[in-house]
Amino acid sequence: MQAEIITIGDEILIGQIVDSNSAFISKELNKIGVSVYQITSVQDDKQHILNTLEEANTRSQVVIITGGLGPTKDDITKHTLCQYFDDTLIENKGVLAHIEMLFAKYISTPISDLNRLQALVPTGADVLQNNFGTAPGIWMEKGGTAFISLPGVPFEMKGLITNEVLPRIIKKYKRPHIIHKTIMTYGLGESAIANTIEDWENSLPKEIKLAYLPSLGRVRLRLTAKGENKEQLQNLVNIEAKKLYPLIGDIIYGEEEDESLEALIAKLLSQKEMTLATAESFTGGKIAQQITSIPGASNYFKGSMVTYSTETKINVLGIDEVLVEKYSVVSEEVAVAMAKNVKQILNTDFAIATTGNAGPTKGDSDEPVGTVFIAISTPELTFAQKFTMGNHRERITQKSVNKAFELLQKEILKF
Amino acid sequence: MQAEIITIGDEILIGQIVDSNSAFISKELNKIGVSVYQITSVQDDKQHILNTLEEANTRSQVVIITGGLGPTKDDITKHTLCQYFDDTLIENKGVLAHIEMLFAKYISTPISDLNRLQALVPTGADVLQNNFGTAPGIWMEKGGTAFISLPGVPFEMKGLITNEVLPRIIKKYKRPHIIHKTIMTYGLGESAIANTIEDWENSLPKEIKLAYLPSLGRVRLRLTAKGENKEQLQNLVNIEAKKLYPLIGDIIYGEEEDESLEALIAKLLSQKEMTLATAESFTGGKIAQQITSIPGASNYFKGSMVTYSTETKINVLGIDEVLVEKYSVVSEEVAVAMAKNVKQILNTDFAIATTGNAGPTKGDSDEPVGTVFIAISTPELTFAQKFTMGNHRERITQKSVNKAFELLQKEILKF
Repeated sequence: MQAEIITIGDEILIGQIVDSNSAFISKELNKIGVSVYQITSVQDDKQHILNTLEEANTRSQVVIITGGLGPTKDDITKHTLCQYFDDTLIENKGVLAHIEMLFAKYISTPISDLNRLQALVPTGADVLQNNFGTAPGIWMEKGGTAFISLPGVPFEMKGLITNEVLPRIIKKYKRPHIIHKTIMTYGLGESAIANTIEDWENSLPKEIKLAYLPSLGRVRLRLTAKGENKEQLQNLVNIEAKKLYPLIGDIIYGEEEDESLEALIAKLLSQKEMTLATAESFTGGKIAQQITSIPGASNYFKGSMVTYSTETKINVLGIDEVLVEKYSVVSEEVAVAMAKNVKQILNTDFAIATTGNAGPTKGDSDEPVGTVFIAISTPELTFAQKFTMGNHRERITQKSVNKAFELLQKEILKF
Repeated sequence: MQAEIITIGDEILIGQIVDSNSAFISKELNKIGVSVYQITSVQDDKQHILNTLEEANTRSQVVIITGGLGPTKDDITKHTLCQYFDDTLIENKGVLAHIEMLFAKYISTPISDLNRLQALVPTGADVLQNNFGTAPGIWMEKGGTAFISLPGVPFEMKGLITNEVLPRIIKKYKRPHIIHKTIMTYGLGESAIANTIEDWENSLPKEIKLAYLPSLGRVRLRLTAKGENKEQLQNLVNIEAKKLYPLIGDIIYGEEEDESLEALIAKLLSQKEMTLATAESFTGGKIAQQITSIPGASNYFKGSMVTYSTETKINVLGIDEVLVEKYSVVSEEVAVAMAKNVKQILNTDFAIATTGNAGPTKGDSDEPVGTVFIAISTPELTFAQKFTMGNHRERITQKSVNKAFELLQKEILKF
């Protein structure tokens, strides 16, 4: 059982956008036991698309096509599919009603003939409803191969994959069972972990494969088991995962790949009915933004004071000017004062504060680029730690945000 | 003159990594007039790679292969190239010396036989020196087609493309000129723009192709011209781009693709020596985060008050409780008050404020999910506008952030 992905659109081949859709689709297919044999990106060129469809047909049972479904002239996927299937386009009443509903409800410009054209689908196609946009998904079959055409807009594509495509594939095809379990760790590097769990890794049963997935202060350990007997595989994976706790239990924070540390913190705070505020300098609102990206954050997150200038730290967050002069704005003392003050001002149980230098220039302190202080305030104490996060602006920020959540989660667990 | 890219490695096909290498290579090739016909991602499988090389050979003069050059056994690119070229591997003294130098200088672990194997190259290959790693690039030719194999590690690949591959292609091949110009627009949808510029689009000279690239309240219009005479093409593109201004000049905000609206705002505020603050409710710090992602933001950005709860809006931002009770927290009146207050508290020239409902539930107001108010305060006035941003949490937020920058930029231009 194998699949292929074809992405259509000049924008990928001129390097204007990075094809992140294929990674998402591959990951989702792998989770349900479908292996992806090839990903092919082709231009908006009818003959080229036709050749690619034909080749994929000889190799794979499922071909997922993204892109080229927009309302404008350069989008030719639907017409090309019609040619490939020797079919014609016909207006689909359900799709038209959906487009009209979307325009009436969300879109300020009047609906045009171009928009109505998106309701045209090949007569032999199954329509996959796109809840987030006007271009429907299309499912057609030829010679035992399913061709599934989806819009290239990532969130529309994702909705269609999750709600329409995967359930249909699961129902239609027999697949091997693939069990994944991901152990989420923080605070230790990939090779240090590898050294610690070497014996465990070497004695893994042959059905289980291990992958290290490192990123910015976190390493995910992914166990994958593939075979016929689902329960047996699940058992095997659970047993091996459990053996990790005596070895590296102190750095494990979760076992669900799709659950972020912020989401775990959200759960903890909600359960304990406790609240959080942040005071951010060089992280510039990123901590607040990641917290509020979780639905329901208003239950425990009261707000953030993004004090990007020293002036704002003093005037708005009430940091003592003497403290800044004595220790500099990038210091343990200022980080601690920021956390204490924001906790008090916003009247919360916990607070995170950050001050540091993300570069490219030194800013309002003498600390070198990459030096950051992260402070945590709890109902019992306040502390700050110093870190050196490298010299890449974006990575300094993201690593610090990750570290802040790590420090905070450990503290919340104490209450 | 056309090229293809082949990426080798299971990690792309299981969705573990996003293939950003291909976008970089495509962009660089396009700049020197080489069009990329296809990008193909294949597994670490010899026969599959051989088939893919053979197909690429029938279509393109240049084939760039990335990945599969590491020291471990799942990396098979070099052996597969040998089979394809009916060649054998031989130790290259220069490469070996380079590997030994890298280990001596930068790598703490001792050099192993596996590492030394990376000095093996096909006898018929030109070696491309990899300054940043141990795996050399390889250039081989067959039937008029050049096959160029590069490591998959992004910064090693980038160094080789820039220093070795591009100069050789420029020297060896006659190429057409490719000119791109991207017109950046905001505030109008793809199909509404298409309707407005239909006559212009239909009368474009045949050398010029137009592409619409929409994303969350913005549409990029990309003009591409290809031909022999660079100056003539540049002229043609400029003339056609200029004709857009009388048609849609009010929605055009720039002509440089790599420049975000935040970066434009950054430039404007720096030039005018004016400052900005934000008060964010449902956007949760995202506006501040995007502003501070630009190096040097501390010159004009003083901070943000992320007032995620009604309580924080009242206690910290000083919003009148009566106002909240009378109009609700998601209202024009509260948005205006938030913008005015944060501008005053942080002592800036401009302020952005947001209040709204990003869902999934209604929150502290009766307004439906997707209803947002964005307020702008300038040295002269404060106003708020109401928008309906759909029903997808992440998009409601991002569309609102984009819209806020759009509204702000228009106001800054008046000063």
